[in-house]
Amino acid sequence: MIHLLAEAGDLARETVEVEGADHRHLFRARRLKVGDRVRLIDGRGSARWSVVDQVTAGRAVLRVEGVAPVFEPARPVALFVSALRPERAAWLVEKATELGLRELQWFVSERTSRSLPARALERQRRIAKSALEQSGGAWLPEIGVPVPLEEAAIGAGSVALHPGAATSFMAVAGSAEAIVVGPEGGFSEREIEELAGRGAVPAHLGPRVLRTETAAVAALAVALTAMS
Amino acid sequence: MIHLLAEAGDLARETVEVEGADHRHLFRARRLKVGDRVRLIDGRGSARWSVVDQVTAGRAVLRVEGVAPVFEPARPVALFVSALRPERAAWLVEKATELGLRELQWFVSERTSRSLPARALERQRRIAKSALEQSGGAWLPEIGVPVPLEEAAIGAGSVALHPGAATSFMAVAGSAEAIVVGPEGGFSEREIEELAGRGAVPAHLGPRVLRTETAAVAALAVALTAMS
Repeated sequence: MIHLLAEAGDLARETVEVEGADHRHLFRARRLKVGDRVRLIDGRGSARWSVVDQVTAGRAVLRVEGVAPVFEPARPVALFVSALRPERAAWLVEKATELGLRELQWFVSERTSRSLPARALERQRRIAKSALEQSGGAWLPEIGVPVPLEEAAIGAGSVALHPGAATSFMAVAGSAEAIVVGPEGGFSEREIEELAGRGAVPAHLGPRVLRTETAAVAALAVALTAMS
Repeated sequence: MIHLLAEAGDLARETVEVEGADHRHLFRARRLKVGDRVRLIDGRGSARWSVVDQVTAGRAVLRVEGVAPVFEPARPVALFVSALRPERAAWLVEKATELGLRELQWFVSERTSRSLPARALERQRRIAKSALEQSGGAWLPEIGVPVPLEEAAIGAGSVALHPGAATSFMAVAGSAEAIVVGPEGGFSEREIEELAGRGAVPAHLGPRVLRTETAAVAALAVALTAMS
């Protein structure tokens, strides 16, 4: 099945035009033809079937049809992650989007060693689109430019990964609405206290030291699987 | 804490010599000095403390001391994975090793579109060493060159990921000894029957279509977390 992320409002139209990179992907790489079916997703949790109606060298028209099923987690889960090297950040975005991430907010905390340039965020948004189309998801995760940890919207329902925590992540995974993942050096004790003060529950993912992006993807997989 | 994968037998010696890439990493990049502590791991589940005794420009000597703690999953979990593009395969090796993978066997099934060159496997072994040292694990996963699916040692205790399965992976995650992950196009029905005949339980990871390496890392994270 082929999934295409449509523009805002496209699902309410009778036809949708496809040009540029999407056209090349669908009609050159994937070789779709008139009469083939495409599942249109709007990135906001809805999907509709469509059928290829016309194809020319640079443009195609899809005829929008009935409502298509969506494959979303029972509850949205957000990630708050310490800013990472662009290559590792891109991998996190791809994997987390496939798994069903709803929202990603990068942050900078005491031990975060870098920020993320605007160019890296643009690339992440393109990667998220591809990963969403690849996986058949219907929600395109929003990706927020790095903010100071204190300004990130972390509150009750969040779980902050912390090696020194008494609670195991598994015990809280099924109810986590957001997962907060610190830099390689972890959160400072002051930051963990401050996060706990905002209602986040500190929890550990086991005794190993995981890279930031590994911890984020592993915890998201556990949280989404635990609620299914 | 600094972890170093030692050669076979090194943990039984009184001193261990460090040269080459390990020397550059520990004494140039990480700037260790005489008197600093290094946790030596043997890649077979054991670890010992050591102390830097001598450092010269190209060689150092560690004095081996008492037994160090190990951070291993309660039970070993193996991955059997359809051969992947080298870059995606390398990511899988890094992430799965950090998480605590015991063994990785690549295989080729009906819909597998490629094999893995020897060069890619050598690189994967280097990546596994780094990931083990990064994470503090003590077992270096063995990585097996691709074999036909029929020849892979898949038996009872294995779970084969299959979108059409009736069982959810979460239901069997805590007891999985091995996780079998097919290519992008999945297993054929004939292959799933054949795997079930060998004792593998088919289970699904949710309704989304995950890339092979995403499914492997997500399932491993869930299995290792579920048993902790």
